Amino acid sequence: MTQSYFGAAEFAARRAKVKAAMAKAGLDLLICADPANMDYLTGFKGWSFYVPQCVLLHADDEHPTWVGRGQDGAAARLTTTLPDDHILPYPDDYVQNRTKHPMHFVADHIKKRSWQRARIGLEMDAYYFSGRSADAIRAALPDARFSDCDHLVNWVRLVKSGPELAYIREAATLASAAMRAGIDGIRTGRRQCDVVAEIYAAQVKGTTAFGGDYTAICPLLPTGAGTSTPHLSWSDEPFREGEATILELAGSRLGYHCPMARTVHVGQPPKRLADTAAVVIEGLHAALAAAKPGATAEAVEAAWRGVISKHGIRKESRIGYPFGLAYPPDWGEHTASLRPGDKTELEPNMCFHCIPGIWEQGWGFEVSAAFVVTASGGKPFYDFPEALAIKA
Amino acid sequence: MTQSYFGAAEFAARRAKVKAAMAKAGLDLLICADPANMDYLTGFKGWSFYVPQCVLLHADDEHPTWVGRGQDGAAARLTTTLPDDHILPYPDDYVQNRTKHPMHFVADHIKKRSWQRARIGLEMDAYYFSGRSADAIRAALPDARFSDCDHLVNWVRLVKSGPELAYIREAATLASAAMRAGIDGIRTGRRQCDVVAEIYAAQVKGTTAFGGDYTAICPLLPTGAGTSTPHLSWSDEPFREGEATILELAGSRLGYHCPMARTVHVGQPPKRLADTAAVVIEGLHAALAAAKPGATAEAVEAAWRGVISKHGIRKESRIGYPFGLAYPPDWGEHTASLRPGDKTELEPNMCFHCIPGIWEQGWGFEVSAAFVVTASGGKPFYDFPEALAIKA
Repeated sequence: MTQSYFGAAEFAARRAKVKAAMAKAGLDLLICADPANMDYLTGFKGWSFYVPQCVLLHADDEHPTWVGRGQDGAAARLTTTLPDDHILPYPDDYVQNRTKHPMHFVADHIKKRSWQRARIGLEMDAYYFSGRSADAIRAALPDARFSDCDHLVNWVRLVKSGPELAYIREAATLASAAMRAGIDGIRTGRRQCDVVAEIYAAQVKGTTAFGGDYTAICPLLPTGAGTSTPHLSWSDEPFREGEATILELAGSRLGYHCPMARTVHVGQPPKRLADTAAVVIEGLHAALAAAKPGATAEAVEAAWRGVISKHGIRKESRIGYPFGLAYPPDWGEHTASLRPGDKTELEPNMCFHCIPGIWEQGWGFEVSAAFVVTASGGKPFYDFPEALAIKA
Repeated sequence: MTQSYFGAAEFAARRAKVKAAMAKAGLDLLICADPANMDYLTGFKGWSFYVPQCVLLHADDEHPTWVGRGQDGAAARLTTTLPDDHILPYPDDYVQNRTKHPMHFVADHIKKRSWQRARIGLEMDAYYFSGRSADAIRAALPDARFSDCDHLVNWVRLVKSGPELAYIREAATLASAAMRAGIDGIRTGRRQCDVVAEIYAAQVKGTTAFGGDYTAICPLLPTGAGTSTPHLSWSDEPFREGEATILELAGSRLGYHCPMARTVHVGQPPKRLADTAAVVIEGLHAALAAAKPGATAEAVEAAWRGVISKHGIRKESRIGYPFGLAYPPDWGEHTASLRPGDKTELEPNMCFHCIPGIWEQGWGFEVSAAFVVTASGGKPFYDFPEALAIKA
């Protein structure tokens, strides 16, 4: 590990944007427990989000404050440029203890800084901010005015900076290599796990110029009847003649993801699958063409829907979401969704994963595009064949 | 994917144990959002825990009820043997929506079953049961009596069944293969990412008899000054002469994990590292010898402490935790801890990962043993050299 991969100016710009959003939301203090938001604000890396930790950002403090487990304090010193007095490790007996909670330690620090009457924003729907964390901090600070910050930092992250886009482009190279390994590896009789081993190796080995990181979701690989649902992983069963396999995976460069989905069929595909694939690809292109600055998220979905409804295909679930810096268990950013009713206006340098998956009784098809919003529409980060791949 | 890897008798025994614990705790209904607990109670698999989902277990209902996102309903049908009327997919617009929450859907079902006055146990410290989930279900069911179930299912999981131990043994084979790939792969000038690609491939490819699954934590690989902290992952920098690398990883067989940590040094190690390694290994063996049925968790730690204190080594953090069925971001079970004050009595077939890591200013050392409690002490699942590995 080295120091942060972004310069001081990038972090200053991020913090200024977040503080402006805090002012608009009427917040003095933000408690971020989402590891992607912690990284975004400070550069902090490490698989330590399995214990409670957070970054505190106060409107009046120049620096964010990292709070985490004692043994992870050195990781904060190694991966961030925070001053030492803004790195607060808590004693180990706070970990998985029925009678004390790390949020009590956080509350003590907030009192020490005289912030106990602040208007405090919590990330109430972040994965690693449990019900107990929320209850503990609220009970320990009875004079504070708490509210759900509604993914405030995630919304700031929606528009990517130049350096962020550069890492996503590298992640696209990793995703393409992993998808190539997967499609090349599938054939009748080979075990699924043997192909997934090659996918992982490609994701991580990367190129001679740069390597890859772990991805926020494992390679998904539903096969056969499993293609009726998107989130199954692999087994050690063999690929079988006459069965389809959906591959959804990503590359990750320093936590910046680029996701991709493709579908493979071993042997000649049934007509309904081949026909569906052609329509879905046409619909995906319509969505990309519509993804221009000023268009709404729902308008992008409507462009897709306009194509598929002509062909009698229906889909009720959203067709896409923003992506970027991410930690397990999701590379989506949880802000806008490409679906009816979402009025988010697209801006240049927003990045979306458009993945209009079709899951029917016993079968399914997926193809996707990870794209950046440009004046001429959504521009995919990769140029990778979209057609249903046919293998022997 | 196939149907569950355990028979009906195993699930019946699990549910009976959980219901007995519920009766003891005064609970009518349990809402489990921890994916490992959902899997334990139903066999449900899938990387869908990034959206709210849960299993409801009511004392008076023969079957648990799965609630999750619409597109994951087919995964519940494919991986569990739950009757169709106990699989409840919610519409997609509940996903990441500011004004409605999946827990409202859960509350509606609870009312439909006339359980709205029940004594309901929540997993208040589960990763995927956010503050917003907790607030939403409590607000929607004002007549229910809620309490934190305090990891009730996790405590039931502490003692493993025969079929569970068989899968952990297979996971030990995977962990050993992955560790072997890592130690063999490290040498001066090779990139860290190239070695981690080989680790992942070994974890997943497995043996000719069985393959491996994704692990709940990525391979951890702090190197150089990074060995002063446990949870850093790899980079694309090369391994360097005169630097140590800590490898902590696991194998996973159908979600059943077996973790392992070892330390490698490129070139001749400094005396303080070699001396520390010898003492830590001696202390680890003392802990294993003490891990007999009837001993307390704190007694196991005391045996370790007795050895290291003679040699002037101090360690404040816990030295181990139970492991088994796990999903990201942790393969620990969050119940007992091998540390002072923990009076949990060991029983046969409990499984612990004893990992007495030493993290000092600028350097560190880790070695571990994943063991099962037996009458003759803690028996490691693998036989893998514990000494500091020296590479060129």
